[in-house]
Amino acid sequence: MKIISVEERTIPLGSDTANAAISFQNMTASAVVVEIETGRGRFKGLGFSSYGRYSHGGLLRERFIPRLINITSGISGETSIQLLANVWDILMTNEKEGGHGERSGAVGVLETALWDAIAKSEDLPLWALLERDVGHSGDNGLPAGKTAIYASGGHYRSGSSDATEVAEETKQSLGAGYGWFKLKVGGATQAIDIARLEAAVQAAESSSLIAVDANCAYGGETGATQLNEIDQIGLRWIEEPVDPLDYLALAGCSQSLKTPIATGENIFSQADSRNLLHYGGLRPGIDKLQMDFVLAYGLTEYLRMIADAETLGWSRRDFVPHAGHQVALHAAAGIGLGGHETAAVSGGPFSRVSDDTVVQDGIASLSDTPGTGIENKPELFKLFQDLL
Amino acid sequence: MKIISVEERTIPLGSDTANAAISFQNMTASAVVVEIETGRGRFKGLGFSSYGRYSHGGLLRERFIPRLINITSGISGETSIQLLANVWDILMTNEKEGGHGERSGAVGVLETALWDAIAKSEDLPLWALLERDVGHSGDNGLPAGKTAIYASGGHYRSGSSDATEVAEETKQSLGAGYGWFKLKVGGATQAIDIARLEAAVQAAESSSLIAVDANCAYGGETGATQLNEIDQIGLRWIEEPVDPLDYLALAGCSQSLKTPIATGENIFSQADSRNLLHYGGLRPGIDKLQMDFVLAYGLTEYLRMIADAETLGWSRRDFVPHAGHQVALHAAAGIGLGGHETAAVSGGPFSRVSDDTVVQDGIASLSDTPGTGIENKPELFKLFQDLL
Repeated sequence: MKIISVEERTIPLGSDTANAAISFQNMTASAVVVEIETGRGRFKGLGFSSYGRYSHGGLLRERFIPRLINITSGISGETSIQLLANVWDILMTNEKEGGHGERSGAVGVLETALWDAIAKSEDLPLWALLERDVGHSGDNGLPAGKTAIYASGGHYRSGSSDATEVAEETKQSLGAGYGWFKLKVGGATQAIDIARLEAAVQAAESSSLIAVDANCAYGGETGATQLNEIDQIGLRWIEEPVDPLDYLALAGCSQSLKTPIATGENIFSQADSRNLLHYGGLRPGIDKLQMDFVLAYGLTEYLRMIADAETLGWSRRDFVPHAGHQVALHAAAGIGLGGHETAAVSGGPFSRVSDDTVVQDGIASLSDTPGTGIENKPELFKLFQDLL
Repeated sequence: MKIISVEERTIPLGSDTANAAISFQNMTASAVVVEIETGRGRFKGLGFSSYGRYSHGGLLRERFIPRLINITSGISGETSIQLLANVWDILMTNEKEGGHGERSGAVGVLETALWDAIAKSEDLPLWALLERDVGHSGDNGLPAGKTAIYASGGHYRSGSSDATEVAEETKQSLGAGYGWFKLKVGGATQAIDIARLEAAVQAAESSSLIAVDANCAYGGETGATQLNEIDQIGLRWIEEPVDPLDYLALAGCSQSLKTPIATGENIFSQADSRNLLHYGGLRPGIDKLQMDFVLAYGLTEYLRMIADAETLGWSRRDFVPHAGHQVALHAAAGIGLGGHETAAVSGGPFSRVSDDTVVQDGIASLSDTPGTGIENKPELFKLFQDLL
């Protein structure tokens, strides 16, 4: 494989929403196109940053794109996994250990574009390429090409964050075939949050169809009290109750809460993932791991995280990646993860799934279109117009 | 305080040297100038990235400079510490928890420039401002304005990394008044490294005047064997024996080695520092903590790390920051840290200390020049010419 060209554009994602920790008004992402040449011809791969940690334009132009472009000799590997692991080594040349943030997203978005290109060069959807080269675990009870899927939303909006709106979003999401619905908590008073939650549970007709995302709002004693109240509701999961690096607090949560805990979207490396699993007190088979490989050095590093976790008793069913990229959808369907997240709000690049994906009864069934399917997601694809 | 302007330039630092992990051929850093206005007038502060993790131009221009420039109302604080903590909150607006890398260096270099400007506005050297507003612990047996200082070098150079050269560098460094000398290991065969080490010890006439920096080269069983051999020499410290996030391996090192361990230069946040201290098995009063606040969200975050460490039995004497910036020199002399590192190789921005600093008998005595003294470090100051 030869790298022909790499282009990046920074895309403003500004939206009038917030979670407990941040506003999304000035959020950005990187759209990346990598053109490769293989024995079968030239193929363009599309990659898009994950949500919540900004674009990587500066880092890509300063360090990572030059490293990729400077590979003049071609890159090889017996399988797509080995090929990408070799690319990974090149991208990480002269990078020190430790301090995993930002660069992990730059590497992740580049790798994502490469996966799209390589899958296209093999004339396979990414899920089928991954099923072939990694293997599907079968853990999740679904065949390759299908995955559980849920909708997330319930953000705080300026002027309105009321229970009626949350109930409506819950009904719409479940009505559209998503398996469960997740809403934001921790960004309002506990009374308002509980009202929002009760409205969602009532709309869903089951507390197990409602998860919450606290974006680390529940540190300290007040947080513990609030968490205990939420724990009584019997939700599907409580996401990021505390700072994911505060392993003591996290272990405290898993000791005191019956509700499953989900975390990992801000854990960006194999080293950090290992520490989370060793020290965070999380419970295999109960809690959910949401590492987002577009933010975390790509699928190459993600497979290392999964391998580590499997030695500690976790299964791929426990992995439910953050954010809702097409690549995460394909990974879930290809190697058998616990599910796929997608934004319930219509419009915007993280909303829904590609048009050729069927969502029904909580299951997404992917098509045979080669690549990752960004071309079939019009709201996302239009952001690549300048690059193609 | 009002922010008048912020400028950044990316500076190539390419040098023909390497450590066990990376080559420095394409290394870069950011030079930053921040102009502020206070009741006393306008002052320009200079900041310079730390070494080893590249420049932060993209991140600075994309996120952090706009946040600083957009403060139109002025920033206040009863002391310089509170003022900078308020700036910190503004810089970290809409940044999620977790994933601390890169952005921590962007914030660090900006804060560093602000400290220079604020010290100038108070007509004080930074060390005296810190002594006044933080306090000097007295732990290190030196008065404010003075700090222990050592020289680091012994890099691998293409074509020559021989013992004679290392011996020469050791003699020059100790002869120039530095208290001890640190050289690279782990990047050659063990036989070559031991020969280099023996040459350095012989040149220093004492193994306690020689430290080594392994840049994480000693993971795994082979590494453990090599470490045990080096442990017999009785060195001052062994730095970064393993990945600083591999707490299990690090704890293994502190259990098996008599030699003090030094680590922390790739630990970039209070959250990561807490985990290092909780899980890394390091020994207060024996091991050294090298967190580099220019890479790690600045002095504001560094004071939080120190406060955490003090509750666990560590003293400021155990803190010896990485790299050799003027700000680290001033922090060591102002609040009483365990020492200051500076590059033994002459030439280059991290070499030696400002001309108005006297180095003698292992102690650096700082002058009363206001600010951090970059203007008195010609090799570094010339990199700011385009910005001033």
